[in-house]
Amino acid sequence: MKEKKVVEEITSMSEDFAQWYTDIIKKTQLIEYSGVRGCMILQPYGFAIWENIQKGLDERFKATGHENVCMPMFIPESLLQKEKDHVEGFAPEVAWVTHGGSEKLPERLCVRPTSETLFCDYYAKIIQSYRDLPKLYNQWVSVVRWEKTTRPFLRNCEFLWQEGHTAHATAEEAQEETIKMLNVYADFCEDMLAIPVIKGQKTEKEKFAGAHATYTIESLMHDGKALQSGTSHNFGDGFAKAFGIQFSDENNELKYVHQTSWGMSTRIIGGIIMVHGDDKGLKLPPRIAPVQVVVVPIAQHKEGVIDAAEALCAKLSKVARAKLDKSDKTPGWKFSEYEMRGVPLRAEIGPKDIEKNQAVLVRRDTGEKIFVSLDEIEDTVLKLLDEIHDNMLETARAHREEMTSVAKSYDEFKDIIENKGGFVKAMWCGDTACEEKVKEDTTATARCIPFEQEHISDTCVCCGRKAEKMVYWGKAY
Amino acid sequence: MKEKKVVEEITSMSEDFAQWYTDIIKKTQLIEYSGVRGCMILQPYGFAIWENIQKGLDERFKATGHENVCMPMFIPESLLQKEKDHVEGFAPEVAWVTHGGSEKLPERLCVRPTSETLFCDYYAKIIQSYRDLPKLYNQWVSVVRWEKTTRPFLRNCEFLWQEGHTAHATAEEAQEETIKMLNVYADFCEDMLAIPVIKGQKTEKEKFAGAHATYTIESLMHDGKALQSGTSHNFGDGFAKAFGIQFSDENNELKYVHQTSWGMSTRIIGGIIMVHGDDKGLKLPPRIAPVQVVVVPIAQHKEGVIDAAEALCAKLSKVARAKLDKSDKTPGWKFSEYEMRGVPLRAEIGPKDIEKNQAVLVRRDTGEKIFVSLDEIEDTVLKLLDEIHDNMLETARAHREEMTSVAKSYDEFKDIIENKGGFVKAMWCGDTACEEKVKEDTTATARCIPFEQEHISDTCVCCGRKAEKMVYWGKAY
Repeated sequence: MKEKKVVEEITSMSEDFAQWYTDIIKKTQLIEYSGVRGCMILQPYGFAIWENIQKGLDERFKATGHENVCMPMFIPESLLQKEKDHVEGFAPEVAWVTHGGSEKLPERLCVRPTSETLFCDYYAKIIQSYRDLPKLYNQWVSVVRWEKTTRPFLRNCEFLWQEGHTAHATAEEAQEETIKMLNVYADFCEDMLAIPVIKGQKTEKEKFAGAHATYTIESLMHDGKALQSGTSHNFGDGFAKAFGIQFSDENNELKYVHQTSWGMSTRIIGGIIMVHGDDKGLKLPPRIAPVQVVVVPIAQHKEGVIDAAEALCAKLSKVARAKLDKSDKTPGWKFSEYEMRGVPLRAEIGPKDIEKNQAVLVRRDTGEKIFVSLDEIEDTVLKLLDEIHDNMLETARAHREEMTSVAKSYDEFKDIIENKGGFVKAMWCGDTACEEKVKEDTTATARCIPFEQEHISDTCVCCGRKAEKMVYWGKAY
Repeated sequence: MKEKKVVEEITSMSEDFAQWYTDIIKKTQLIEYSGVRGCMILQPYGFAIWENIQKGLDERFKATGHENVCMPMFIPESLLQKEKDHVEGFAPEVAWVTHGGSEKLPERLCVRPTSETLFCDYYAKIIQSYRDLPKLYNQWVSVVRWEKTTRPFLRNCEFLWQEGHTAHATAEEAQEETIKMLNVYADFCEDMLAIPVIKGQKTEKEKFAGAHATYTIESLMHDGKALQSGTSHNFGDGFAKAFGIQFSDENNELKYVHQTSWGMSTRIIGGIIMVHGDDKGLKLPPRIAPVQVVVVPIAQHKEGVIDAAEALCAKLSKVARAKLDKSDKTPGWKFSEYEMRGVPLRAEIGPKDIEKNQAVLVRRDTGEKIFVSLDEIEDTVLKLLDEIHDNMLETARAHREEMTSVAKSYDEFKDIIENKGGFVKAMWCGDTACEEKVKEDTTATARCIPFEQEHISDTCVCCGRKAEKMVYWGKAY
């Protein structure tokens, strides 16, 4: 049977999670590998997901007062070097342009790994007075980081993202912006991607190169590993001092601006795959699925079936992203194919359904079959897409809760990390040495100091000294 | 008066067209120069224009069956070299990446100047059967060409564009696609940008490196120089042979695909400026203007004025991109500012207007004042935006007609190019030597062999031999 064959091509999650991931990405044609190591080709299906993510985020950025701009992709070496921590963090992994045509450039240019330095250079030019503030800018571009080990979506040498960069008159405003955008990301993940996230602050060790404080949203994958899904940084006035970004305030005094930056990337598509997918393949959250409902005609050679399927698809297209597959493949092949591709709903229509003025809807998340009158199918599809979203979010949340443990002792901690995986909530003294020891002993890292603190014990899970904070720990992508 | 001051800052077109262009770009904050030669920063106003262009084109690409993808930005040197003419055309102006971090790369990578080679490499992998055809892909990215002389929008080292790349089973289909997309560009320019264009074919000398045939849309700027505004290339099977892109046809015979590519870039924003602008500044075509109507309160300190202006802006926002300026600048300053920024319509509302339940609409294109009842202002604004579009298109067309001459002798030809400028329609023998001579003598080039041919004389305007085609000639950006 062809149906089986399609499914068999995907390795089971429990057998080999990494291979399952790779199989899905290739079989569902999200990406194709390119001739350059670590650089992927986003194929139509993969790019359509990104377009929907982009649209959803962009609307939220504009609704919170941000404007889009576009910076050059090149950063002169001298500009990259202006902020000490920043250059130390990024210089080892940038791609260097040394020649234009046959001529050697007077100064090397790096391909942006991130654009703080470009925005700072720009802000130093255009900001003079408090009337020029705040600047609330964002850009949609690709960035390059010469990673040693790469994996599609999760770690690429080139990836697509957005980077917001803002400048404010006061430290308070910058902090407010930093948290506001972290919340935009968190809400977006839950409302659009059905991915529940933990919000919190990164430790000193894990924060962004040059940042005063980094905030993160962390999600949990099906295999119990964490994924940093979006970050928001408060730079304080560190970059402003390095780049000389000053403004005259209301009293005509010169002050440094306070800055933020925040980013989300195609990495989140890896998150979608690993949070929601199953052994049948992808399971796409309805609100960003390129196809929300696929219409499959049954016994399509029979008179009237194709016409009815076309009419159904036209009807559904008014309320959802609908697609009709009238190719000469068998219905069974199509069922498997669109399940593998993660299409949230399938609408089957055959001679018997036409007789009864109905169609059969099948949910990707539960497999449930629903017989619906054609007279009310639009409303039902809309309702079901919402239900699927809610169910996917709850399923993911339940999985995360199940995979979130508490550890009071270091033995317990190591045992959970090694044998169960997932998030471990445990106390921490605040010392980087303990983070380093945990990483060395278990490969787990401090994912975040969550905003929602709990008191688990009085002492650091690693060193036994007085605890400062409760931390989410875990192995991560 | 402040009003005057704003206007005075822009050099008059007749005085110095190049300076007028530069002034507009800077004063209206379309772009800012970056620290890298020839790479510009698209500021919010400039990028918002590009977003509207992108939206309009993307809808048209999708409506004609195209899908978006995203290729890497790097091309390995060996891949760039696979098609002989192509590498000769582009290698002299590419930026070379030689190092990743501190390590020298085993092979140099160029930053894409265009992506034919990447698409070909990809197509060779994914196309096997006639069932895989056609492939109708497009991408929105930036490309890099290390130009010696640069000008914002018109010639940049990095610029934003879209590049469509398609593969077809037959030569006929590829040719059909090439012309279809040229028509999409032409219609887009007229319907969205109010720019009339001449459609035609490029000569052998002017065609794209590696193309079988290049088609172009040419528009005429206010100063009488031409701008190549979009191109569509038919590659035949040349790239397919160089890259081994074959498919089995219905009879299981191996055949080479036939390919096309087509692109439009941020260069067209330079065209919008130079086709429509005047001594007051920008004049934006309503359908892509980031702000279509600006609401300016008059005597805004008086009771009820700000409220009425806000209500008016809210009302207009339902049908158009409306913006209220309630800053403490004078109305006169605001009038000049938004005229300079090219906003198509201004809506003034003051105490007297409120009394009469009206607003005053002022057209950017004609300066005409129209008193409109607030009860019907939405419809009037929509109607006026269409009228402004039509008027701008007709004005541009009339200017182009006025600046299009016919030359039967070479003396006449040289005289027109030197003293009048604009397009010159003249016959050509088909020999590249004549194109070269014309360029040397006059700096004018063959803009295109228009689809709409006219018989002007029997002999080539340059050499006097038998003429093959009528050509549009002109100096160009």
